[in-house]
Amino acid sequence: MNYTFSDGLRDLAPSAIREILKYASVPGVVALSAGNPAPEAFPVEAIAAISEKLLRERPIDVLQYGATEGYQPLREHLKGYLKSKYNIGGEDDEVLITSGAQQVMELVTKTVCNQGDTVIAESPSFIGSLNSFRALGVKLVGVPVEADGMNIEALEQALKTNRNVRFIYTIPNFQNPAGVTMSLEKRRRLYALAKAYGVLIVEDNPYGDLRFAGEDVPSIKSMDDDGVVVYAGSFSKVLSSGMRVGYALANKTLLAKMIVAKQGEDVHTTQWAQMVCHEFMTQYDFEAHLDRLRAIYKKKAELMMDLLDEHLVPAGITYNRPEGGLFIWCQLPEGVDMAEFCTKAVKEHKVAVVPGSAFNVEGEHLQTFRVNFSTPTDDAMREGVARLGVFAKEYIK
Amino acid sequence: MNYTFSDGLRDLAPSAIREILKYASVPGVVALSAGNPAPEAFPVEAIAAISEKLLRERPIDVLQYGATEGYQPLREHLKGYLKSKYNIGGEDDEVLITSGAQQVMELVTKTVCNQGDTVIAESPSFIGSLNSFRALGVKLVGVPVEADGMNIEALEQALKTNRNVRFIYTIPNFQNPAGVTMSLEKRRRLYALAKAYGVLIVEDNPYGDLRFAGEDVPSIKSMDDDGVVVYAGSFSKVLSSGMRVGYALANKTLLAKMIVAKQGEDVHTTQWAQMVCHEFMTQYDFEAHLDRLRAIYKKKAELMMDLLDEHLVPAGITYNRPEGGLFIWCQLPEGVDMAEFCTKAVKEHKVAVVPGSAFNVEGEHLQTFRVNFSTPTDDAMREGVARLGVFAKEYIK
Repeated sequence: MNYTFSDGLRDLAPSAIREILKYASVPGVVALSAGNPAPEAFPVEAIAAISEKLLRERPIDVLQYGATEGYQPLREHLKGYLKSKYNIGGEDDEVLITSGAQQVMELVTKTVCNQGDTVIAESPSFIGSLNSFRALGVKLVGVPVEADGMNIEALEQALKTNRNVRFIYTIPNFQNPAGVTMSLEKRRRLYALAKAYGVLIVEDNPYGDLRFAGEDVPSIKSMDDDGVVVYAGSFSKVLSSGMRVGYALANKTLLAKMIVAKQGEDVHTTQWAQMVCHEFMTQYDFEAHLDRLRAIYKKKAELMMDLLDEHLVPAGITYNRPEGGLFIWCQLPEGVDMAEFCTKAVKEHKVAVVPGSAFNVEGEHLQTFRVNFSTPTDDAMREGVARLGVFAKEYIK
Repeated sequence: MNYTFSDGLRDLAPSAIREILKYASVPGVVALSAGNPAPEAFPVEAIAAISEKLLRERPIDVLQYGATEGYQPLREHLKGYLKSKYNIGGEDDEVLITSGAQQVMELVTKTVCNQGDTVIAESPSFIGSLNSFRALGVKLVGVPVEADGMNIEALEQALKTNRNVRFIYTIPNFQNPAGVTMSLEKRRRLYALAKAYGVLIVEDNPYGDLRFAGEDVPSIKSMDDDGVVVYAGSFSKVLSSGMRVGYALANKTLLAKMIVAKQGEDVHTTQWAQMVCHEFMTQYDFEAHLDRLRAIYKKKAELMMDLLDEHLVPAGITYNRPEGGLFIWCQLPEGVDMAEFCTKAVKEHKVAVVPGSAFNVEGEHLQTFRVNFSTPTDDAMREGVARLGVFAKEYIK
């Protein structure tokens, strides 16, 4: 049988980085390409104890169907937590529990976009979200990311010149892949523009709790008095990625449609995972846990930056110093073939990084690659960056 | 802010049965409206033991990101299981693990349908699947269900007269809500027609293992030598619905696109749930477990049919005798106002059933309602059907 695919999926291949990621799992290759939490970041004993208790005391609640909007105690707890910690969420906002924050992107798109509508995204941006928009057949328009976030003039231009723009997608904190954080000034201007143009903002904040330097910047959602912002949060980087629990905080009118969409997608998120998240947040010291994670990632990030200074900077590679998150964005000198550099690094020198092109929005040329410091062990980082340094000095003439 | 919704979601309200289901949770109401597995059907102790072992021995595998296509040992096991038990799955077929079988419906639609394309479904059919198609903006065309399954002449007519038909959706075994099973003859004709018209079949089989009378009928997928059929299975009714684990068996070319779509939806299905399913299928006696479930549901179905015979048949209500599954489809005499009957039953007589209109595809008139025998206790069934009988005798003049 000859298959005919939808417009959204027809040209959507497994991401361009698959080839490189395939090599990343070859024995002997040091993978600086992943985005997984550090294994030591999982509170294994607490989760095991919670799980045992839940299955002993409330097995039917764990195993039976649940509500599409999510496990009610978790929804309520998150609402209070987000309000008290970040001052986000007004009277008209509610929480929807999703199967990872990825599902928030998909549900918003499905709820407000027809095929052919436009979504504006930072360029570069997280490929998972970009592909979730693409799969629904929307047109993506990229706005360049600078050291303090989105270029707001370019954003205004994009809003002016594109038809049927339905939302602006941003990762304001420790952006993936660029590692930058949007300034408060730019957040305010972004919000004002979105409101003026009647366009939603999807504020994706998976790394917000992983700040290990500098000061928190208020969330865009905290400025929202008109239901403009859909805020997406996640347990993937702070508790467990394999559990697949994220959430949206948004105006209840919009959220009600997203709930209808979710019902047709997976009915509800795995009960066990939601209940474990709730117990962990309420029966354990969640803030102490986050402190522990920040200490882990601060140490790993600093090691990575020391290694980059030692091995890559002398070869002419520059990078930004992130204040949180899991990634560092490295810039190759002009004239160097970025794609070939990344390919040869993994094939000939057994060190995998992600070529910047994986994250572009409209096929923009990028002279960058992404390295991750959360997944590899310290020794693997030392070995991987040293190899990359040897290769870079030889390759960059 | 004024929200503008996509064509698919704009008119999609929380299902029409919500109002009735809301009453179903009012204290004192007997709910014959649900579709949950019987609480005693969950193998609680086995799942607790498996979970404890997994979190003790392999915590990082449980808590870390997994592959989008699913937990590899479960994929492989299911492939062998489906082949040996049902003779389905050829050389070009692979298994994708999904977040419940609901996600199979959503992924197929997203992969092969543009907005405005047509999907043919049995009418009545499962509202969850219908809404998952609707949310993506497809046009639904209904084909009447008869005692031996879909009306094949009507199907051929629908294939002839509708443009851009992308797939035919069927629940061949113990259909929800009609309870009927499609005959082998009709399965063959359905397959031949789909192949002739170059249209996919989505064969949804959540209840196949819950046959408590009669003989198994070969799966449509077992006739498939050309990648026409996407087979959807589920652990929701045979292990745990709250876990949200289902699967698709389909041609690998098609499945590859569905995997890309799933990556943008929830990245992967909860690892814990997939690993528990795999351990339960391979380390416990899965067939003995299914035997136990069939015994539970046989007993409950027979009790329900005895009660219907005693209380409803004398009032002029007829029903079909299902050979498996969880539901019985009851027919009111012509001239009786079905919607009012169901509303008054719950509001005035405190017994909730689902009005047939919840399951219609194109707004067809239905004179039916659905009762469920898996969720209520035996005593609740006795009380609920007795109440319904008192009311029916009074209401149906």
